[in-house]
Amino acid sequence: HHVSLHPPMPRCTTDCPGVGGCFSPCLGGDPSGDHLPPHQEHAQEGENNDKFFTHPRNPKALAAYLFAHNHLFYMMELLTGVLLMVLSLCEAPAVPSLRLDVYVHATLELLALVMVAFELCMKLRWLGFHTFIRHKRTMVKTCVLLLQFVEAIVVLIRQTSHLRVTRALRPIFLVDCRYCGAVRRNLRQIFQSLPPFIDILLLLLFFMVIFAILGETHTPFWMFFKYFNTLENSIVSLFVLVTTANFPDVMMPAYSRNRWSCVFFIVYLSIELYFIMNLLLAVVFDTFNGVEKMKFKSLLLHKRSAIDHAFQLLVSRQRPMGVSLKQFDGLMRFYRPRMSSRDRFLTYKALNTAGAPMLSLDDFYKFYEVIGLKWKVSLTHCINLLVKSKAFQYTMYVVVAVNGVWILVETYMLNSGFSWSRMVPWSYIVFLTIYGVEVLLKITGLGPLAYFSSGWNLFDFSVTVFAFLGLITLAFDMEPFYFIVVLRPLQLLRLFKIKQRYRNVLDTMFELFPRMASLGLTLIIFYYSFAIVGMEFFADVVYPNCCNTSTVADSYRQINVTMGNRTVLDEGYYYLNNFNNILSSFVTLFELTVVNNWYITMEGVTSMTTHWSRLYFMTFYIVTMVVMTIIVAFILDAFVFRMNYSRKNKEPLLDPEGKSNGIVFEAEVSRDEALATLELYKKTCPGLSSLNSLQGVLLAMDRSGSSSLVYLGRRSRTKSDLSMKMYEEEIQEWYAEYSRENLPQSDRSLVERELDIPPPCPERES
Amino acid sequence: HHVSLHPPMPRCTTDCPGVGGCFSPCLGGDPSGDHLPPHQEHAQEGENNDKFFTHPRNPKALAAYLFAHNHLFYMMELLTGVLLMVLSLCEAPAVPSLRLDVYVHATLELLALVMVAFELCMKLRWLGFHTFIRHKRTMVKTCVLLLQFVEAIVVLIRQTSHLRVTRALRPIFLVDCRYCGAVRRNLRQIFQSLPPFIDILLLLLFFMVIFAILGETHTPFWMFFKYFNTLENSIVSLFVLVTTANFPDVMMPAYSRNRWSCVFFIVYLSIELYFIMNLLLAVVFDTFNGVEKMKFKSLLLHKRSAIDHAFQLLVSRQRPMGVSLKQFDGLMRFYRPRMSSRDRFLTYKALNTAGAPMLSLDDFYKFYEVIGLKWKVSLTHCINLLVKSKAFQYTMYVVVAVNGVWILVETYMLNSGFSWSRMVPWSYIVFLTIYGVEVLLKITGLGPLAYFSSGWNLFDFSVTVFAFLGLITLAFDMEPFYFIVVLRPLQLLRLFKIKQRYRNVLDTMFELFPRMASLGLTLIIFYYSFAIVGMEFFADVVYPNCCNTSTVADSYRQINVTMGNRTVLDEGYYYLNNFNNILSSFVTLFELTVVNNWYITMEGVTSMTTHWSRLYFMTFYIVTMVVMTIIVAFILDAFVFRMNYSRKNKEPLLDPEGKSNGIVFEAEVSRDEALATLELYKKTCPGLSSLNSLQGVLLAMDRSGSSSLVYLGRRSRTKSDLSMKMYEEEIQEWYAEYSRENLPQSDRSLVERELDIPPPCPERES
Repeated sequence: HHVSLHPPMPRCTTDCPGVGGCFSPCLGGDPSGDHLPPHQEHAQEGENNDKFFTHPRNPKALAAYLFAHNHLFYMMELLTGVLLMVLSLCEAPAVPSLRLDVYVHATLELLALVMVAFELCMKLRWLGFHTFIRHKRTMVKTCVLLLQFVEAIVVLIRQTSHLRVTRALRPIFLVDCRYCGAVRRNLRQIFQSLPPFIDILLLLLFFMVIFAILGETHTPFWMFFKYFNTLENSIVSLFVLVTTANFPDVMMPAYSRNRWSCVFFIVYLSIELYFIMNLLLAVVFDTFNGVEKMKFKSLLLHKRSAIDHAFQLLVSRQRPMGVSLKQFDGLMRFYRPRMSSRDRFLTYKALNTAGAPMLSLDDFYKFYEVIGLKWKVSLTHCINLLVKSKAFQYTMYVVVAVNGVWILVETYMLNSGFSWSRMVPWSYIVFLTIYGVEVLLKITGLGPLAYFSSGWNLFDFSVTVFAFLGLITLAFDMEPFYFIVVLRPLQLLRLFKIKQRYRNVLDTMFELFPRMASLGLTLIIFYYSFAIVGMEFFADVVYPNCCNTSTVADSYRQINVTMGNRTVLDEGYYYLNNFNNILSSFVTLFELTVVNNWYITMEGVTSMTTHWSRLYFMTFYIVTMVVMTIIVAFILDAFVFRMNYSRKNKEPLLDPEGKSNGIVFEAEVSRDEALATLELYKKTCPGLSSLNSLQGVLLAMDRSGSSSLVYLGRRSRTKSDLSMKMYEEEIQEWYAEYSRENLPQSDRSLVERELDIPPPCPERES
Repeated sequence: HHVSLHPPMPRCTTDCPGVGGCFSPCLGGDPSGDHLPPHQEHAQEGENNDKFFTHPRNPKALAAYLFAHNHLFYMMELLTGVLLMVLSLCEAPAVPSLRLDVYVHATLELLALVMVAFELCMKLRWLGFHTFIRHKRTMVKTCVLLLQFVEAIVVLIRQTSHLRVTRALRPIFLVDCRYCGAVRRNLRQIFQSLPPFIDILLLLLFFMVIFAILGETHTPFWMFFKYFNTLENSIVSLFVLVTTANFPDVMMPAYSRNRWSCVFFIVYLSIELYFIMNLLLAVVFDTFNGVEKMKFKSLLLHKRSAIDHAFQLLVSRQRPMGVSLKQFDGLMRFYRPRMSSRDRFLTYKALNTAGAPMLSLDDFYKFYEVIGLKWKVSLTHCINLLVKSKAFQYTMYVVVAVNGVWILVETYMLNSGFSWSRMVPWSYIVFLTIYGVEVLLKITGLGPLAYFSSGWNLFDFSVTVFAFLGLITLAFDMEPFYFIVVLRPLQLLRLFKIKQRYRNVLDTMFELFPRMASLGLTLIIFYYSFAIVGMEFFADVVYPNCCNTSTVADSYRQINVTMGNRTVLDEGYYYLNNFNNILSSFVTLFELTVVNNWYITMEGVTSMTTHWSRLYFMTFYIVTMVVMTIIVAFILDAFVFRMNYSRKNKEPLLDPEGKSNGIVFEAEVSRDEALATLELYKKTCPGLSSLNSLQGVLLAMDRSGSSSLVYLGRRSRTKSDLSMKMYEEEIQEWYAEYSRENLPQSDRSLVERELDIPPPCPERES
């Protein structure tokens, strides 16, 4: 089935250069644990789950496919997307200093849209019209593109911007580009969590309406004043009350008349805030958990199927038992063109744990585990030993602690009038020197690769670099960058490493960082859309002393008050929370996300527009609530998972000093082996410069005078590795289920394993 | 070992009345799943885990033990505890309408304290001096009692209350009483969660201090005004910022000068609020999860060991194979004196699934599963069928929906001026009649027992009763109770039952209710202590127009403002959030719990006292944060557990109409069996009136004309039942581990099972 999709490609043979041609689609371009292989991803987002239906079907399509699948093209996609989004900084209402003329930004926009259109054309060519139409995301993108095109032309002709709410759809161009896969996955996860979320939200609204009726109609004796005088106000007040933003205030007038009226609010908050809101979290957390596990399962089975495919294509008819080094090397040369010959050989050795002349299917199943390893000679010299010694670590802890005390003392001295803004204190230089020496020692001791693979070391390194920049700032007296100086206390964070729990927590924090960043990006995309809508409708509606008819007029007031004999400006400041340009909008939306006092902004805007504006704010609240709940669920899931893991395996997740931080494979290479491999490589693919690395192994052996060298392959541990251990039993079940379903295909390998035919005579040594 | 602790008790024989004497301590008094048996509980709270060390050791002790272990004594304990707490309503500063003279409330207090002392004396007598000293909780109670005693006497002598912060310790008398076991468990759980919580809290504070230094010293160009002018103010501002209560306000002055200053706040909130606060939840959730599982495990193993003990005591030397009905009946007569002879017999039948003449140990292991069953004849008649029919259910849904629409229409009519406060609308009567008939039909159809065992039915019933009370209220025009009328829309909640997810969620909600109530009680106990401290230090410090020197003076202002031609009272209302009496304190503390604007109360009080007052408010915030996090963790755990359960077992947790709601056992009784059992009972314990119930079985058979009857035993499903299914595999491991450890004791039963000796001739029929 798979092969028949690629008629123009050669049937895989053991020939060196062509061998990888058909494995690339099988094995996928991005085998790291947290990212789905591209075809998997396409398939998930496509309408049906046929994993290979997006593959090019003819040579022309293949050309387009190859053109559209490289980093240059991806980069172009990304830049176009970013450009389109950044344009809103310059379009009216623009950030004052970045304002551009209408024809300038409209032309830029048209240019970017043409680029997007070109990308889409390439995709059309590669996918074929039929598949293109069936691919939902691409179709949506096409429609949005057409719309934006028409609008951009209209803007150019009229030389003025009209009401362009559709600009809110611009993020789709960014989301669709290759590098934003993580954002797409987040969005998918958000949409998957929506149905249960909405169910509970309805329950929340149900209680809200009941209490609104209760608060409004049937309780004349409580006198709820302005907050409950109509059903609309009742509902709005109770909506805001769920966010607690108006809490004691909404209660106070009633409470001052009748002390028992607080029962109404206490019951309402207990049900809505402390029960149903937690329920929301529980439901989302549960969905999230399930989705994560299913994702892991489908990724795992996809990898297995890819390996099955590749294995069946690799084994030659003469030797049906396994994959030889020659074949493996051919595959790797295509799959990872940048990999050196030494690393290819070491990867083969890492797979070949049994030491047999060929890789069996079981060996080959570990393909994705060893593929990302970085290899280096395992070495121990004095700096290495020093850096790894407990004494060195604890000395550094003491230095950091002293530094911390010093900073506190300094801060108090500053408070008592002593100022050093013009001179660099000697303590700064002393501590910076110590940290600098430590960083240098560690880099030489551990090697740059091992050093930078630990989150802690990266953190130390960047704090030290910042401190150095701070020193320069101080020395050259660059006031606006003084804040760099005060990042120094962050060094103190290292002290937390002494305790196991903090190590767990902070290590997880470092590992979560990429995912958190993608969640943040997702949030920014929502912000962007809401900011555009906000700017179109609410730009310049609030200003000092506006909103006099609303209940929040005080917060917008800006008057001169005479206090004794001097005049003071009494400012409400809330007019600053506006939608006058995209940056202000972002800050305003962040304030709305934090929720506190958000109703002041809402009521201000509402009083200057219509009461339908509340819909915008309430929708925004609900959307951020969804995203925030997902973030909480994500953090909860990640930490609980890791704590369970370290409890189940009774080992700390990570070593204190990042020594065995991550996955380590060992491969011992003897002199004879290295020579034989070199011969083999020279025979199959002569004249390749990549052989140098293999000759380097021999040279290293000569230098050290030993007849064999031990290499360590290292990579950081991904969640996928942890999941493998956590779900051990379930994985066996999944595999069993999978092989039952795919029996006809993996037939051959099953037969192989059952017959247990001894491998033919060694080929490597020949 | 066990037997040697009870020298005055007879060695268990097969004799009828004495048989249970030694099982009661083994099997525990309270075998329901969610409650630990009392000895288990004592043991857990004692210093060592010796489970039986609190048992009475001699006849005098036994007398005291029996005196102190009955509901009358427990009730007295509870009332004393409540009385002591309620006293603070009347002590200065008292609720105005409840103020009592000093000598009255001091005398009442002394009385209550004497009662507590009496209870302690009984405990001393029963435990013996040595154990008494070793029991930590009792010792703390004794110390507090002495202190309170001295203080109460001082108050009586001086005829005025002094600074009595120690009143904050009063809840210990309530917490210690038997009925507050759930509260004690909650407190234990809170203390168990503390260490990880504090660790993360330190991380939070670390970032807080770093940002405080950053905000205060090194950034003269941002001009942070009043919020960051000293290090103390910096830290307080950032502490309040973590709660978001002062959010945009604290940023606005800086933001108005330099737009980039928002970065400081955004970074701070992202780290503290959106990351570390979630981490707190994760850590507590994880601890909570682990503790729940360990609790379940220890309870399970304790039950097993109790059953092992009891079984070994029950089997007679002549027949070492199992427990006969006669022996079982003797045990039950002591263990559950109120159980009727019929139910004892049916329980035996339920245990005896194999139909063998005797109970084997394996049968006997199900003891705790069947002990709480309520038995009734399985019957089906026309009302039963009608009530259970889909048509009936959906008719009711339609009625509820129509009612809901009606209420909405009514509300809008009321809004448009039409008022019915003086007359009862006919719709009210119609719907109430329908609901009333439904309730009656269901009670007759399902039987009161099955009806009230479902949370939904209880809910329906209470809403209908409330509606009826509302009707009376309207008819007799009792204005203050109008709020009952408006509880009617709660009927609409039934509509949510149509969807599976809501059923799951709401059913879980009903089942969580007892636990939630106990958590609420725990919170109230914390409130009480804080309220007392607050009243001692902050009573009458805030009043209208106070706090003029603070930044929150506006919120306490109460001035007449002339607006055009009329004078309006401009009220800040926050002076109402005071500690002037215990009720006001509770409301104030609730407002602090909700967090929004809590700093206004804090700053108000601080400006009128010293800045050390902030410590009180911050401590309170952290304490409620712990309790609230526990509540969130609890809800999360309960829901995720149940959703996992229903996913794992691919069955909805509960049937839509509560038909098989809970655990159901079946036992068929034939005429011969019933007669034989009656004979047996008459022989062993003649003249007992409880035989009537067994005769009732025969009568029922006569009436129905059949030769056998099927009885259904029913109880609600507890979390323990769910856990049994969820942890199936782990339970087997635990048992295996347990029997390895306890081999010498359970030796005999193991041998039995391995030899598989056939049981001797049937005894029951003889």
